[in-house]
Amino acid sequence: MTVTEGRQKWLTVAEELATALRVDAAERDRLGEPPVRELDLLRQSGLLTITDWTTQQAVTRVVGAADANIGHLLGYHYLQIWRTGLFDKPFEPGDNLFWAGVSNPLDAALSLTPAEDGFVVDGRKTFATGAALADRLVVSATRTDTGEKLTFLVDGRAPGITFSGDWDNMGQRLTASGGVVFERVPVAAADVLGRQPDDETSPRLSLASLGFQLVLSQLHVAIAEGALAEAARYTRSTTRPWFLSGVDSATDDPYVLGTYGELVAGVEAAGLLADHASLALLAASEQGEALTAEQRAATAAAISSAKVFSTGVVIETTGKVFELCGARATASGYGFDRFWRNARTLTLHDPVSYKAREVGEYFLTGGRPPYTGYS
Amino acid sequence: MTVTEGRQKWLTVAEELATALRVDAAERDRLGEPPVRELDLLRQSGLLTITDWTTQQAVTRVVGAADANIGHLLGYHYLQIWRTGLFDKPFEPGDNLFWAGVSNPLDAALSLTPAEDGFVVDGRKTFATGAALADRLVVSATRTDTGEKLTFLVDGRAPGITFSGDWDNMGQRLTASGGVVFERVPVAAADVLGRQPDDETSPRLSLASLGFQLVLSQLHVAIAEGALAEAARYTRSTTRPWFLSGVDSATDDPYVLGTYGELVAGVEAAGLLADHASLALLAASEQGEALTAEQRAATAAAISSAKVFSTGVVIETTGKVFELCGARATASGYGFDRFWRNARTLTLHDPVSYKAREVGEYFLTGGRPPYTGYS
Amino acid sequence: MTVTEGRQKWLTVAEELATALRVDAAERDRLGEPPVRELDLLRQSGLLTITDWTTQQAVTRVVGAADANIGHLLGYHYLQIWRTGLFDKPFEPGDNLFWAGVSNPLDAALSLTPAEDGFVVDGRKTFATGAALADRLVVSATRTDTGEKLTFLVDGRAPGITFSGDWDNMGQRLTASGGVVFERVPVAAADVLGRQPDDETSPRLSLASLGFQLVLSQLHVAIAEGALAEAARYTRSTTRPWFLSGVDSATDDPYVLGTYGELVAGVEAAGLLADHASLALLAASEQGEALTAEQRAATAAAISSAKVFSTGVVIETTGKVFELCGARATASGYGFDRFWRNARTLTLHDPVSYKAREVGEYFLTGGRPPYTGYS
Amino acid sequence: MTVTEGRQKWLTVAEELATALRVDAAERDRLGEPPVRELDLLRQSGLLTITDWTTQQAVTRVVGAADANIGHLLGYHYLQIWRTGLFDKPFEPGDNLFWAGVSNPLDAALSLTPAEDGFVVDGRKTFATGAALADRLVVSATRTDTGEKLTFLVDGRAPGITFSGDWDNMGQRLTASGGVVFERVPVAAADVLGRQPDDETSPRLSLASLGFQLVLSQLHVAIAEGALAEAARYTRSTTRPWFLSGVDSATDDPYVLGTYGELVAGVEAAGLLADHASLALLAASEQGEALTAEQRAATAAAISSAKVFSTGVVIETTGKVFELCGARATASGYGFDRFWRNARTLTLHDPVSYKAREVGEYFLTGGRPPYTGYS
Repeated sequence: MTVTEGRQKWLTVAEELATALRVDAAERDRLGEPPVRELDLLRQSGLLTITDWTTQQAVTRVVGAADANIGHLLGYHYLQIWRTGLFDKPFEPGDNLFWAGVSNPLDAALSLTPAEDGFVVDGRKTFATGAALADRLVVSATRTDTGEKLTFLVDGRAPGITFSGDWDNMGQRLTASGGVVFERVPVAAADVLGRQPDDETSPRLSLASLGFQLVLSQLHVAIAEGALAEAARYTRSTTRPWFLSGVDSATDDPYVLGTYGELVAGVEAAGLLADHASLALLAASEQGEALTAEQRAATAAAISSAKVFSTGVVIETTGKVFELCGARATASGYGFDRFWRNARTLTLHDPVSYKAREVGEYFLTGGRPPYTGYS
Repeated sequence: MTVTEGRQKWLTVAEELATALRVDAAERDRLGEPPVRELDLLRQSGLLTITDWTTQQAVTRVVGAADANIGHLLGYHYLQIWRTGLFDKPFEPGDNLFWAGVSNPLDAALSLTPAEDGFVVDGRKTFATGAALADRLVVSATRTDTGEKLTFLVDGRAPGITFSGDWDNMGQRLTASGGVVFERVPVAAADVLGRQPDDETSPRLSLASLGFQLVLSQLHVAIAEGALAEAARYTRSTTRPWFLSGVDSATDDPYVLGTYGELVAGVEAAGLLADHASLALLAASEQGEALTAEQRAATAAAISSAKVFSTGVVIETTGKVFELCGARATASGYGFDRFWRNARTLTLHDPVSYKAREVGEYFLTGGRPPYTGYS
Repeated sequence: MTVTEGRQKWLTVAEELATALRVDAAERDRLGEPPVRELDLLRQSGLLTITDWTTQQAVTRVVGAADANIGHLLGYHYLQIWRTGLFDKPFEPGDNLFWAGVSNPLDAALSLTPAEDGFVVDGRKTFATGAALADRLVVSATRTDTGEKLTFLVDGRAPGITFSGDWDNMGQRLTASGGVVFERVPVAAADVLGRQPDDETSPRLSLASLGFQLVLSQLHVAIAEGALAEAARYTRSTTRPWFLSGVDSATDDPYVLGTYGELVAGVEAAGLLADHASLALLAASEQGEALTAEQRAATAAAISSAKVFSTGVVIETTGKVFELCGARATASGYGFDRFWRNARTLTLHDPVSYKAREVGEYFLTGGRPPYTGYS
Repeated sequence: MTVTEGRQKWLTVAEELATALRVDAAERDRLGEPPVRELDLLRQSGLLTITDWTTQQAVTRVVGAADANIGHLLGYHYLQIWRTGLFDKPFEPGDNLFWAGVSNPLDAALSLTPAEDGFVVDGRKTFATGAALADRLVVSATRTDTGEKLTFLVDGRAPGITFSGDWDNMGQRLTASGGVVFERVPVAAADVLGRQPDDETSPRLSLASLGFQLVLSQLHVAIAEGALAEAARYTRSTTRPWFLSGVDSATDDPYVLGTYGELVAGVEAAGLLADHASLALLAASEQGEALTAEQRAATAAAISSAKVFSTGVVIETTGKVFELCGARATASGYGFDRFWRNARTLTLHDPVSYKAREVGEYFLTGGRPPYTGYS
């Protein structure tokens, strides 16, 4: 099977999962329960095991269009395995295991205390998407003795880890993005991947944050695609022509058609920009240690460009689609507002104005973004 | 007390009510229960008894900014009394009674069967905002014998009226906008106000639909004002400066300040346009029977202009304010998405594209909007 | 004659002048010659002598819609007389004289050397709109002995004044906005109005810069109004229906009508916001020395809000109207691009992003704009 | 040399030509003379001889960014040769000849009268971009005897052809897009390519109009890219920091950087969408007679999507860049308004609202655009 055939096979699998997820996506959003069953579907689908970068990105979009929560978990899962690989240390992603991370850069750091055979980790972190459901966690913490910031792997069900279940936000409600508490959780020396990039000496390790920015953009695009598709189903099946329109079907209304056209064009453009950024990151990642600061900057700018653009597109699209469906589409049963709520929540991950600034600075002066948890 | 003093006094009362409503607005939105207690507050405030048009509009904005549901009920209450007055038949608004209407133009008509001392009314209507809580209802129905469409008053608690309580939508959740069923509900001949305008013979009676369009615009503005005010409180009290911003407070961030400025300018413009439309409708209404078709058309265009513009502004504003607050403002406890959900629901009342068309046609060719339930 | 009657009379005069100016506005824009004849028309019309603030503003809009150059000269003329009045020193505006100013705040200051009976002024200033055609100039310069910055009046044709005629820009081509050179031009002590406000001790004197900001906004609105009116004439008379539209006249095209509607709504909103700012400045100006820093700040914010909003509207409108006219409307003979070129030139007077920042800061924290030549 | 190496070589050549064209682009726009010298440069560069589709598109963008007139001539030149190839009849593009077309679909048709050895063509057409400078013309006309519409080749300097030189429009001033008059111009039977597609029997021949739509989008993108590049040079070299900005260089201004970022992201997205459409058309074109109506529709939708999106982007970008440069950038010498004038002229080729409608219809219902001169 060629790469292309393999990709096509996985896209078919992803479409099937997407179809299943769509059935009760609105209802699950309303209930707000952790996506345990949906994670089982993910595992059963085999999608967790995909290793080809481009297929991972495409599959994230397909799943994310149907359910942005599950797309988010899946996209981050791929990233955690990918970023683990950046450390150039052999590791095993495990047999159909679900990965998540614990590393909100804005929290105080976890502490890593040397102990027999390695370390113990202590402390609490907020906003650890998917961690409560994960088989394996990628965690960062600061050594109490040397002050080094290390990244390591932990079993998601290790004793000493508790999840606060405190994610209760207006969007991405099913991503289990609550806090995590570590109490003397053992970390084997063999599970330490390496140092976090805290300066600009390793462009390559610093790609991890770019990966997260990219996946956020892919999810923006996915949500916009999902909203358009759902709206189109509704317009075709349910929307009544406006009595002053002079047409017999909402699908003939000039304003409905024109607005679909404008939104579709924007969403297609956003998708291409995200795919372009994805290929840039793949190329940078494949450079290995040869990656230069300049290539890293160009990659960062491409990713920020996708972030800026997709943010505007998804907010516009998820708001505007209602005008293509009509007043009755606001009934709670449809839950169409989840697209906007998911989009508005995700797009706030970090301020888009500073991403626009990065893109502008790189374009205008070639100035490079600093290496941070967000850039 | 002059009109201005009177207006000021009522605005103070409205501000006090607004302050009270804001306390639990997010919580009440979440619970979704009928606003029985809030209607009591409205009654106690005396705001239901205001008779000055301009004060009514201003008070609707103040209350609507704090709670768009209650603002909606209040704005419609004033309108029902006002439109009853268009029939030039003496009536009594009652002692601090709450009025609502039953007249969704897109439903099949209610039937009005001649009976002893008047009529009985039968049938069902959907989307009757506030009706389930009203003391007095303004209802329209078609005579079974003559086919005439009449408007009349009914006691909101008359036997034979039941409320389906089926309003369960993503926004304006507390407006009790569900359906109403009439089963042989008696209508006294004395409570019949007159014929509905079914052609273009009475510009004045046809003003009723313009009134609803205007109040919707006022509510759009109110929601945008409310969202900005709430966001500003949050930015000042809670938002942390972005770590790459180089400033010590989010209130010094250039992007935060610039975006507030752009949104504020738009919302101010929308408010002035709604006020301008309000004065136009007042002037038209005061013309009495002398109102010409041309003046009616100019008034309709002014109101549609306010509708078109305020729709864009409130959707933009209620979406964008999140960028002024940051990621943590998406926590469910704040319920900030209610501004967008309320706005998105209200703005779909009827398609804004056809309002833009009306404005354009009147400007370009002087073409006048037809007299309908929406124009 | 009441104020309202007087205003109506002047508006009629202004409309007549506007009609005359429109005839060859495109041709004059192309030739780019100084508006000597048009200034004569202005003088003959009597519009230069209007003293009522609100009438001045309204007339500026009417004239500016027909020819933004002449509107600019007229609006600034009124301002120069008004700002001279802020010094509370008696002066005579003269018999139908045309006033202009010389005070670009970003240039180095002119020097004012004490001399017999007053001073002599030396130096050069750029961008002195209308000065080359003015009967009377309001000039600011710095005393060589004390360093004080004074404002004074000079005869526009005094010996020693030369005009560089170097205004050659893409828009507002006929405003004679070139540089001025002063060589030992005498200034009588009696013509010195007073000190420029160089700190925040005199809110009132500092209103001068707000006046210019306001007039710029009025001109933005005027240009947008003019572009819409000209486009509508063209659509009605000349635009052919698109062959795929299914309608017989461009005036029935749904997209044409919808877009007119959206633009008209925005332009009306901008007009109301500018009028609102105008009334705020009138009120502040009438406070005299009682004007507080807080009232001054509120006025400045209202004016900046109008500037921010009208900038967006006029750029959008003057660009979009072409889509309402069609491809043939780009023929040079029509000169329709002058609306956009005029708008784009005027709107760059000072950066709109810093005006948005001012509005945002005042709204968010109550922070007041500094007293400068631009705020 | 591989295709990629060949492409790189041609891009280098194109960049060199672009550099030469930029030197006096503003001056030439002002003078408005036919681009005889620039066409010579094109010929000398060898760019006219490129045969690889993707290289043609890329080169059109590079040249069009520097001078949208020459980019337009070049892009259309490639198209005329390409569309000639759609007829599957052998022909020779000639040795470095410049091709143009005469076929404005909205004019009355030329007449083609049978004559000895072929036909003679008579009549006049408007808006024949580049024809007055062309070595070879692709022309369409209607047979006077059978009513068939045929496409054929004519020598651009054949006796009987005159050019009215009446292209005098606000943008694309140097494209020699005036009218052509044919008076008994002979057409050899061997130069007749075939029938114009006048129904939906030949999806492939109907691709010609899609090609023009695509090239227009490429030019939109090129102009936006050119405007950004020119603005960036100006900001870096000339723009002064605003005195209230608190920064020492305009290249550090947060609003300047943020706005560059937003514009760059949009332009990149537009470029990718145009490239995507280009590949779709290449694929469709390569299908030959096997091209289905459905594939043709999907291709048309991709191209219309690029048209809709690039129209918005280029108008936004060419207007907004002035805010990144400041007031002095409006000096006529810079001629920066040519980007907007060129864009506004090109984007009106046919109404973008009907392109949005096409995209919307295809997305919503799968409805296919008709085969016309514009779709």
